[in-house]
Amino acid sequence: MSLTVAQIAQICQGTIEGDAERTISAANVLAEAGETDLAFVEGNKANRSAEQSRAGCLLVAPSFDVRGDWSVIRVSDPRLAFVSVLHHLYAQTRPEAFIHATAEIAPTANVASDCFIGAYTVIGDGAEIAETCQIANNCAIGDGVRVGPGSVLHPHVTLYHGVKVGARAILHAGCVVGADGFGFTFTGDSYKKFPQVGTVEIGDDVEIGANCCIDRAALGATRIGDGTKLDNLVHVAHNCVIGRHVVIAAQTGLSGSVTVGDYAVIGGQTGVGEKATIDAGAVIGGKAGILTGQHIRAGEAVWGIPARPLRQHLKGLANLAKLPELKAEIIKLRRRLGELEAQQQNKS
Amino acid sequence: MSLTVAQIAQICQGTIEGDAERTISAANVLAEAGETDLAFVEGNKANRSAEQSRAGCLLVAPSFDVRGDWSVIRVSDPRLAFVSVLHHLYAQTRPEAFIHATAEIAPTANVASDCFIGAYTVIGDGAEIAETCQIANNCAIGDGVRVGPGSVLHPHVTLYHGVKVGARAILHAGCVVGADGFGFTFTGDSYKKFPQVGTVEIGDDVEIGANCCIDRAALGATRIGDGTKLDNLVHVAHNCVIGRHVVIAAQTGLSGSVTVGDYAVIGGQTGVGEKATIDAGAVIGGKAGILTGQHIRAGEAVWGIPARPLRQHLKGLANLAKLPELKAEIIKLRRRLGELEAQQQNKS
Amino acid sequence: MSLTVAQIAQICQGTIEGDAERTISAANVLAEAGETDLAFVEGNKANRSAEQSRAGCLLVAPSFDVRGDWSVIRVSDPRLAFVSVLHHLYAQTRPEAFIHATAEIAPTANVASDCFIGAYTVIGDGAEIAETCQIANNCAIGDGVRVGPGSVLHPHVTLYHGVKVGARAILHAGCVVGADGFGFTFTGDSYKKFPQVGTVEIGDDVEIGANCCIDRAALGATRIGDGTKLDNLVHVAHNCVIGRHVVIAAQTGLSGSVTVGDYAVIGGQTGVGEKATIDAGAVIGGKAGILTGQHIRAGEAVWGIPARPLRQHLKGLANLAKLPELKAEIIKLRRRLGELEAQQQNKS
Repeated sequence: MSLTVAQIAQICQGTIEGDAERTISAANVLAEAGETDLAFVEGNKANRSAEQSRAGCLLVAPSFDVRGDWSVIRVSDPRLAFVSVLHHLYAQTRPEAFIHATAEIAPTANVASDCFIGAYTVIGDGAEIAETCQIANNCAIGDGVRVGPGSVLHPHVTLYHGVKVGARAILHAGCVVGADGFGFTFTGDSYKKFPQVGTVEIGDDVEIGANCCIDRAALGATRIGDGTKLDNLVHVAHNCVIGRHVVIAAQTGLSGSVTVGDYAVIGGQTGVGEKATIDAGAVIGGKAGILTGQHIRAGEAVWGIPARPLRQHLKGLANLAKLPELKAEIIKLRRRLGELEAQQQNKS
Repeated sequence: MSLTVAQIAQICQGTIEGDAERTISAANVLAEAGETDLAFVEGNKANRSAEQSRAGCLLVAPSFDVRGDWSVIRVSDPRLAFVSVLHHLYAQTRPEAFIHATAEIAPTANVASDCFIGAYTVIGDGAEIAETCQIANNCAIGDGVRVGPGSVLHPHVTLYHGVKVGARAILHAGCVVGADGFGFTFTGDSYKKFPQVGTVEIGDDVEIGANCCIDRAALGATRIGDGTKLDNLVHVAHNCVIGRHVVIAAQTGLSGSVTVGDYAVIGGQTGVGEKATIDAGAVIGGKAGILTGQHIRAGEAVWGIPARPLRQHLKGLANLAKLPELKAEIIKLRRRLGELEAQQQNKS
Repeated sequence: MSLTVAQIAQICQGTIEGDAERTISAANVLAEAGETDLAFVEGNKANRSAEQSRAGCLLVAPSFDVRGDWSVIRVSDPRLAFVSVLHHLYAQTRPEAFIHATAEIAPTANVASDCFIGAYTVIGDGAEIAETCQIANNCAIGDGVRVGPGSVLHPHVTLYHGVKVGARAILHAGCVVGADGFGFTFTGDSYKKFPQVGTVEIGDDVEIGANCCIDRAALGATRIGDGTKLDNLVHVAHNCVIGRHVVIAAQTGLSGSVTVGDYAVIGGQTGVGEKATIDAGAVIGGKAGILTGQHIRAGEAVWGIPARPLRQHLKGLANLAKLPELKAEIIKLRRRLGELEAQQQNKS
C-alpha cells in the first residue's frame, strides 16, 4: 500500500518538515532505503548514517538536525512510530473466509464459518476453531483441541489432542504443542513410561517460533501466559508454568516443572533445570545455566554456567583474567622471601 | 475410565484404609487433586502437603501417618504404583484398524491390515508397516522403510528411505529420521558432498521426542538400541551408535561416530564431540561439553565444559569462588614481607 | 550399480595392483567391508586396520605397503577418490518428471514441466519452481516463492511467502525458511510485534539440515551465500548475512543481524550474539559464545564462553587447572613468612 508523507505523519502523530505530498510505498533500513522508502533514525550512530541516506522520508527524534533531500517527520519515539506505520504500509490482507476442499475436518469438530483452513490440514473430533482463525495448509489439529479467535497457525503445526490455544496467537511452522512430557520410571532394567495425561494451555497474543516444542503436562497443564513470545526451537518441558509477557530467545530449553514469572526475559541457548523458579522481571543471559531448583529473584539479572548475578559473573571473569598476574606476584613474593631467609641465615 | 479404590488397590497390590468403594475417575498432583482424583505421596515434603490435600484417594508409603478424609492405599513404592494405575485410568484406546482414504500408499508397500494410517500420510515403495502400527496424519514414510509391530508415529514424522524402526517405538511429531549426515570434503574452493549411503536402525521400545533429527550413516548404520529414550530437539549425527536403555534429555547433540553405552544418562543441551565414547552407565551432566575423541568411563559422572569428573568439576568451581580470598591473602603476605624487609634494612 | 576394479580406477584416475576384473557393488568402512565392497585407507591407524580388512578393493595412498587378498588402486588422495567413486556406485536416479495428482499447485504458479512434485505438497500463488527440481511430498511452498533449477526439497519443508532459493540447493525435512524474525517493541506493559516485512535469499549449492529455522528479515533480506552448508537444527535469525562456503554445525544459533564471512567454520551448539561479525575464514569452536557485537577477525580461531583466541582459551584452562597448586604455594609462603617473623621477634 502507498501512503503520502502527510498520511504517515497522521498515523504516527508527527510533525512534517519538507514535502508532505511525496509518496512512500515501502520501508527499509536507513542504509538501503530509496526515494519511495520510509526509514527511521535512532541514536547518534544513525544520525551520522542519515547523512548518506537516500530515503524519501525519515522518522526522526525532536533533536535530529541533519539536513537532506528527504521529508522529515518528527516524533518522540521514531522506532515506535516506524512500527505503527509499518502496520499500515504492509497491512496484512487477512485471507478471505475459506475452507479448502481437501481439509479433513471431523464431523464433530466446530470450525467458525469465517475461518481460513488450508489444503491437507486435518482437524480432529470435537475440536473447536473460533472465528477468523487462519490455519495454513498441512497442519495437524488433534481431537478436542480449542483455538481462540483470530489465531494464526502456519504450515506443519501439530497440536496434539486436547491442547488449548488462546486468541490472536501466532504459531510458526513446524511447532509441536502437546507431545508427551519426558517422564519415565526406572524399573531396574528398563524405563517405564510415566503416562502423560495432562495438557497444554496457551494464552492470548502468544507467539511461538518455528519448530518449538511445548510438551503436555504429566498431570494438570503446561501453561504459557498471555502476551508471551517464544523464538525458534525453544523447548518447554511438561508442567512448566510461564507467566505473561515473557520473552524467550531461540534454542532455550526449560526442564520439567519450571516456573517463570511475568515480564521475565530469557536469552538464547539458556538451559533451565527442573523445578527452577524465575521470578517476575528477572533477566537471564544468553547461554546461561540455571541449576535444578535454583531460584532467581524478581528483577535479578543473572549470567553464566551456573548462573549468578551479573555483577558477580563479570567480577568472576575479571578475576580469571588476572590469574597470570596473581601467579607472577606469587613468584615475586617467593623470591623476596628467599632473599630474606638467606640474609637471616647469614647473620646467625 | 472410573475405578473404585478397591480396584485400584488390586492393580497395585496395596492395602486399603478407609472407604474402599469410593469412585476415582482421574489422577492429579497432590495440590490440585479433588475428591474423585487419585494422587500419590512421596517424600517428607509431600507428607506435609498431604495435610491440605483434598484428593479422594492417596497412594502412600508404609510409614505415612497423616490423617484425612481420603481413602489410603499403602504400597512399597507409591510412585511406581501410581504409574501402574495411570495405565488403567487413562487406558489408551488404540484407534481401530483403519486406513484413511487419502493415505497415499505405494502398491508395492506392505501395510498390515490392522494398522491405523491417518489422512494425507504417504508411504513409499516397498515399505513394510507391521501389525497394529498407528501412523498419524501427514507423515512421510520413504521407500523401503520398515516399522515394527505396535509402533506409533505422531503427525509430521519423516522417515527417509530405507530406515528401520523396531517394535513398540514411539516417534513424536516432526522428528526426522534418516536425513543425510553432515559430511563434506573440502576441495580447495568449495565443499563436495560425501555421499551418505548408509541408513538408520532404531530398536524396540525406543521413544523419540518432537522435532529430533537422527541422521543416516555415511556408510553402514546409525543405531539406537532397544529401550532408549530421546527428549525433544535432540540431534544424532551420522554413524552414532547408541546402546540400550540410554536416556538423552532435550536439545543435546551427538556429533558423528559417537558411541554411547547401555544405560548411560545424558543431560539436556549437552554437546558430544566426534568419535567420543561414553561407556555403559556413565552420567553426563546438563550443558556439558564432551571433547572430540574423549572417553568417559563406565559409571563415571562428568560435568562442565570441557567435561570432567563431577567431584573435580565441583572442586574447580569452589576454587574459582575462592579466587578473591586468594588475592586478599597475597596482598596480606606482600605487606608482611615488606615490613620484614624494612626491619631488616633498619638493622643493617 | 556394480563396477569392476578397472572401471573404478578409471573414475578416480588411479593405478591398479591385483585383479582388475573383480566386481564391486557397494562401499563400506574398512572394518566392515566384504569381498564385493570398496573401502579406503587414510592415515597410519587405517594402515594397521587394513591388515584385517576383507574388502574386495582398497583405495590407498602411494606409500601404502600392506599386502592382502584385495585389489588395490593407488591415488594421491584416497578419501577424495572414494567420494568420486561413491557418486557412481550410488548414482542417484533422479525421479522422473512427475507431478502428483494431489499436489495443490496454484494456477498462477509456474512449475517447470520436468520437475518432480510429491503428494500433498502445496505451492502458492505466483511461485516459480525451475527445471529439474524435486519437491517431496507434504511440502508447503508459499506465495511468490522462487526455487532455482535442480534443487531438492525433502518432506515437510516450509518456505514462507516470497522466499528465494538458488540452484542445486538441498533442503532437508522439516526445515522452515522465512518465518517471522523475532522482533518486538516493548510498549510499557506488553510487546508489540515489529512487522517482519523482509525476506530470505538462499544461494546456489546450499545445503540446509533437518528442522533448521531461517527467519525472514525485518526489512531487506536474510542471506545465505553460495555453497554454504548448515547441519541440523540450526537457527538463523532475521537479517543475518552469511557468506559463501560457510560451514555451520548442528544446533548453532545466530542472533539478529549477524554477519559471517566466506569460508568461516562454526562448530555445533555455538551461540552468536546480535550484530556480531565473523570475518572470512574464521573458525569458531563448538559450544562457543560470541558476544553481542563481538568482532572475530579473518582467519582467527576462537573458543569458549565468551569466545577468545584458541591459544588464550587453552592458556586460561591451564591456569585454572593450576589453581590448587597456586593455593598450596601461598600456604607455603605464609608458613615460611611466619617463621621469619618469629625469628625476627625473638631477636628484638
